[in-house]
Amino acid sequence: MTYSSGTPRVGVVMGSDSDWPVMQAAAEALTEFDIPHEVQVVSAHRMPHEMIDYGTTAAERGLSVIIAGAGGAAHLPGMLASTTPLPVIGVPVKLKALDGLDSLLSIVQMPAGVPVATVSINGARNAGLLAVKMLAANTDDDAQQLREKLKDFATDLNAQAQAKGANLQAQLSGPKTD
Amino acid sequence: MTYSSGTPRVGVVMGSDSDWPVMQAAAEALTEFDIPHEVQVVSAHRMPHEMIDYGTTAAERGLSVIIAGAGGAAHLPGMLASTTPLPVIGVPVKLKALDGLDSLLSIVQMPAGVPVATVSINGARNAGLLAVKMLAANTDDDAQQLREKLKDFATDLNAQAQAKGANLQAQLSGPKTD
Amino acid sequence: MTYSSGTPRVGVVMGSDSDWPVMQAAAEALTEFDIPHEVQVVSAHRMPHEMIDYGTTAAERGLSVIIAGAGGAAHLPGMLASTTPLPVIGVPVKLKALDGLDSLLSIVQMPAGVPVATVSINGARNAGLLAVKMLAANTDDDAQQLREKLKDFATDLNAQAQAKGANLQAQLSGPKTD
Amino acid sequence: MTYSSGTPRVGVVMGSDSDWPVMQAAAEALTEFDIPHEVQVVSAHRMPHEMIDYGTTAAERGLSVIIAGAGGAAHLPGMLASTTPLPVIGVPVKLKALDGLDSLLSIVQMPAGVPVATVSINGARNAGLLAVKMLAANTDDDAQQLREKLKDFATDLNAQAQAKGANLQAQLSGPKTD
Amino acid sequence: MTYSSGTPRVGVVMGSDSDWPVMQAAAEALTEFDIPHEVQVVSAHRMPHEMIDYGTTAAERGLSVIIAGAGGAAHLPGMLASTTPLPVIGVPVKLKALDGLDSLLSIVQMPAGVPVATVSINGARNAGLLAVKMLAANTDDDAQQLREKLKDFATDLNAQAQAKGANLQAQLSGPKTD
Amino acid sequence: MTYSSGTPRVGVVMGSDSDWPVMQAAAEALTEFDIPHEVQVVSAHRMPHEMIDYGTTAAERGLSVIIAGAGGAAHLPGMLASTTPLPVIGVPVKLKALDGLDSLLSIVQMPAGVPVATVSINGARNAGLLAVKMLAANTDDDAQQLREKLKDFATDLNAQAQAKGANLQAQLSGPKTD
Amino acid sequence: MTYSSGTPRVGVVMGSDSDWPVMQAAAEALTEFDIPHEVQVVSAHRMPHEMIDYGTTAAERGLSVIIAGAGGAAHLPGMLASTTPLPVIGVPVKLKALDGLDSLLSIVQMPAGVPVATVSINGARNAGLLAVKMLAANTDDDAQQLREKLKDFATDLNAQAQAKGANLQAQLSGPKTD
Amino acid sequence: MTYSSGTPRVGVVMGSDSDWPVMQAAAEALTEFDIPHEVQVVSAHRMPHEMIDYGTTAAERGLSVIIAGAGGAAHLPGMLASTTPLPVIGVPVKLKALDGLDSLLSIVQMPAGVPVATVSINGARNAGLLAVKMLAANTDDDAQQLREKLKDFATDLNAQAQAKGANLQAQLSGPKTD
Repeated sequence: MTYSSGTPRVGVVMGSDSDWPVMQAAAEALTEFDIPHEVQVVSAHRMPHEMIDYGTTAAERGLSVIIAGAGGAAHLPGMLASTTPLPVIGVPVKLKALDGLDSLLSIVQMPAGVPVATVSINGARNAGLLAVKMLAANTDDDAQQLREKLKDFATDLNAQAQAKGANLQAQLSGPKTD
Repeated sequence: MTYSSGTPRVGVVMGSDSDWPVMQAAAEALTEFDIPHEVQVVSAHRMPHEMIDYGTTAAERGLSVIIAGAGGAAHLPGMLASTTPLPVIGVPVKLKALDGLDSLLSIVQMPAGVPVATVSINGARNAGLLAVKMLAANTDDDAQQLREKLKDFATDLNAQAQAKGANLQAQLSGPKTD
Repeated sequence: MTYSSGTPRVGVVMGSDSDWPVMQAAAEALTEFDIPHEVQVVSAHRMPHEMIDYGTTAAERGLSVIIAGAGGAAHLPGMLASTTPLPVIGVPVKLKALDGLDSLLSIVQMPAGVPVATVSINGARNAGLLAVKMLAANTDDDAQQLREKLKDFATDLNAQAQAKGANLQAQLSGPKTD
Repeated sequence: MTYSSGTPRVGVVMGSDSDWPVMQAAAEALTEFDIPHEVQVVSAHRMPHEMIDYGTTAAERGLSVIIAGAGGAAHLPGMLASTTPLPVIGVPVKLKALDGLDSLLSIVQMPAGVPVATVSINGARNAGLLAVKMLAANTDDDAQQLREKLKDFATDLNAQAQAKGANLQAQLSGPKTD
Repeated sequence: MTYSSGTPRVGVVMGSDSDWPVMQAAAEALTEFDIPHEVQVVSAHRMPHEMIDYGTTAAERGLSVIIAGAGGAAHLPGMLASTTPLPVIGVPVKLKALDGLDSLLSIVQMPAGVPVATVSINGARNAGLLAVKMLAANTDDDAQQLREKLKDFATDLNAQAQAKGANLQAQLSGPKTD
Repeated sequence: MTYSSGTPRVGVVMGSDSDWPVMQAAAEALTEFDIPHEVQVVSAHRMPHEMIDYGTTAAERGLSVIIAGAGGAAHLPGMLASTTPLPVIGVPVKLKALDGLDSLLSIVQMPAGVPVATVSINGARNAGLLAVKMLAANTDDDAQQLREKLKDFATDLNAQAQAKGANLQAQLSGPKTD
Repeated sequence: MTYSSGTPRVGVVMGSDSDWPVMQAAAEALTEFDIPHEVQVVSAHRMPHEMIDYGTTAAERGLSVIIAGAGGAAHLPGMLASTTPLPVIGVPVKLKALDGLDSLLSIVQMPAGVPVATVSINGARNAGLLAVKMLAANTDDDAQQLREKLKDFATDLNAQAQAKGANLQAQLSGPKTD
Repeated sequence: MTYSSGTPRVGVVMGSDSDWPVMQAAAEALTEFDIPHEVQVVSAHRMPHEMIDYGTTAAERGLSVIIAGAGGAAHLPGMLASTTPLPVIGVPVKLKALDGLDSLLSIVQMPAGVPVATVSINGARNAGLLAVKMLAANTDDDAQQLREKLKDFATDLNAQAQAKGANLQAQLSGPKTD
């Protein structure tokens, strides 16, 4: 499945469709930056062979970055990272117990040789943005255009934060005006 | 590599030879009970394809139980469990940071459908003993013999604990005798 | 109490009937595989003598595996393991405070000599499946049949995961079709 | 084995003689207050039957308080508490991993109905003092005498702390005198 | 304020009336054993002088045991313990953040010389029962009577646990009868 | 005991002289800024009455800030804060178990109404600097002078950090020069 | 935005307006003590340049203390502290995962040279009170007046705690009167 | 300072030269892949203005990726990420207390909008490798060449792991040959 037109540049995968409410934010961030991407359920534990295939063929299929979300004993991001030269971004999904700490440690504490770029617990939106930053980390025109968009994005974030501050101040001074 | 004579019944695998000083105790326990077993380095992250193969062929090669040790983002036990109908015992190996908590959570918090029988941090000896208990969990003669050995083992443990207690008391009352 | 016909092969015990909503999933998994089993409340702290008796007689009563669930200072699995040559599977039940971490550590951190096969917090379904894997860890016909069922089970898990992925993709591409 | 003359009032037990270097401080505190006590190795996991016997007969043998030290999945204090009307004091012994947190949680998080009076990690000296405070929690003459000793003990602690402070100040002002 | 007739033997204190819903269970347990007791709000941080007075005069006012509940940076139990020869039982009260871990560590990790008998997080019922066990830890008639009650209490606990087990089994076998 | 001339403005106190190797850094920072200060052992648990006196009289004796270090169930900073209008800075001292987490939580998690300004585990130097910042938080000449010194201090820190960077670069490029 | 008349003495800042429900309590405490203060949204991550400016100019704009609240990877308090000689009070704001532990550690564990006065998780009211205590830590008349108010505040806290205790006792003895 | 010839593509920065023994491994990994890079000390807390400048100018100076290591309240990676469109990789450096958990949480738990690609505690080598993977995440020739090198690297890792396994087996079977 592909959002935006063109060959997918980013693969957004997760261990179960129950992770989608969290992982959706990664896809949305990619859409905001017009990055073609695909979304798939790839379970390390229920689809080990397909998972290995997904990682092994990702680069030749045209992907440049993989975003993988998983919870608990979260093995998907690390296993994908072991099968591809592409950078893999891991999203620790918070499950019912332990508040995401198990997911975080299972993803971030990878051994030397096989890194996973880990973002915050349930931080799928940041995973999407990090993928964009990776795609922009180059010198060609496309990357430079993406970099300009990222600057605009930061400017917008700044403006929104300032607007929220102004709103808060207006709200606080409001009741005292009379 | 096979200890004891006969086809290996238990596979003892670990992510790196640096885990051997910990995992050795699993092999020793199996040797004490004369269980033929093999020892191999199978890294989930550095040998993903071989790891999948190891799990996929384990049963047909005659193994009945797999013991897998790993540290940090410890994916080996869970990934093996996803590729074999055999019970997999996971040993969380303690690395330099976080005192083994990351290893423990990465191994024990498996999703529904793919259990790993987790023992204590660095608890390789118990992993070996648990494998013996699994092999003894049957009604045939071999299993019954093994079960008798386990009873003897428990009797010995009891006797040793009592002896230690007697020693301690002797030592404590000693200096007061005169 | 016995599910399925025949002498129980697995005992499912818990410290209190309040653990049943969690532990039920272990019994259900056993039922799915037609494993005769019994269910009992055996409290380490409120029924210490009965608990010791349960463990001591489990093997001679025909059980092959014990599944024990407990929460907080969870002593039931470890105490049963100290009284029987059978493998004991421990299920850390999550109580109101500490998110199951106390239950997990109380069960998994057993001393050398007395292993408990620990599964995830509230992971009773996996405890049931692990018991099945243990019963299948043999060379006789019954075990081989069980092993085939486990392979079918894994195939089903895989198919379900793939179906969920297909569903998710259908749902995602749906709104964009027109 | 009994320290001080007379029938033991306090039992100091531990799961292994390797706990003695920690638990010794409990016996020393009792000796300072002339409380007759016994010291024994009673392992919950290696001597379950003897452990149950120890708890069940403790009161009739004349003990008033039990101090139990254990580490890891520390079941001894809680199991003893389940078999005796006597107050049980638990000492979480720190093992190689997890810094005593597993021992602490395994001891303190007891279910309603079966309390264990838990002291700090490796806090065996405090366990001894707490036993003394329990023995002094009465209105008879012996208890009153013990209570006076406890007041003297507190006065001494206070004096020592003040002396340490004076020493520190002397040491600090020393180099500045000239 | 005194429950049951006679001079209070146990003081139940807490840092704030917001702790009462938790601490109530301590008073109820004492009432079940007919132990005269008092209930007071004594805040270490908002009433430091009164708190010191409470501890200093507790013994001479006839109390034998103090139960103190507190949450967060929970200083009340430890501070009371520093001002009285009586045993102090600490109840870690769970507040909105950190799930009671801060309360537990603030209470249990007391320095050598000043023990606090710590029970589980929100374990006020156990605090009451532990106080009863302390009062029964003696050789006089009152203590012996209390000890008998404690045995009856344990018998009741056992019977209830067994009844729950029977109920569960009835419920489970019920639907299968026809 | 007083460092620097003049009436002490800051009191540096700790529960035991064993905390001095950590707490010394607070006194040194004050000395660097020529802030008259006193150093005392004031134990919350061994000297509760003296501790209350210390806090109650601190302001009238001319102190403006109190720095208190303590470890484990660290009650000293919070108890002092409950007896004085002065700001109290708490230093969590790391003991043998739990890596300072117990000390930190016991100090920082104070209830509403009684704040403690907590610094990092073993962060005594920062406690001294924070006291200086507090004394500089005013409009009079002395405060303004102190503020200038703080700016110089920050400039020095910056210069040192830059020098370290330059050193590192020199060292790295060194071996490559030829 | 300024509460109370006069130039603001205290700046209350936060990373996002979503922190206001927590941080409001800081402003309220300052209002109770008639401390002129300002409230602003200053995001370390979305407004880094404005944040640096805020810190750099805070002292010359007349502020004496800064209170900064932030959650997760909470960098605002520490970054402000690195740019101003003023004391900075950090409020760890609890977010959806990890119960505020990440916020606490990100704020309190500052390196030597740059202290942050950290209060409890969500402890904004205490941050306000701590700012008042800092402003009162001086010898001029204004500070002395503030110190008197702080004493009255403590007296009120004490009275309220006692009243709550009296209420609780009334409520408890009520049902027993007849 | 620049390793390898050509304009630096990666900036390796750290808060203090004391982080170099850890961070060195990042530079070494870059050198192995012939990636021109620079190494600098940039302290968020001691050099806030220079740090902001570093981030703001990084892209225009030709950098494509920033690797930042920091410990404790580790703000450097997140602050740099807030000032640049480049991807920032964060390395949690383990300090004396808390085993790196504070560093990890301070770096990984970034708010939405400003991601940091976090690697394992002290995982500087993986940070270097992740930077290489990012530089290879493109379609131009240089990237493709780098990708081929990454495949060779993975092949080497695999071969080393297999060689270690063979060594271990040789060593194990050796003593048994006679």
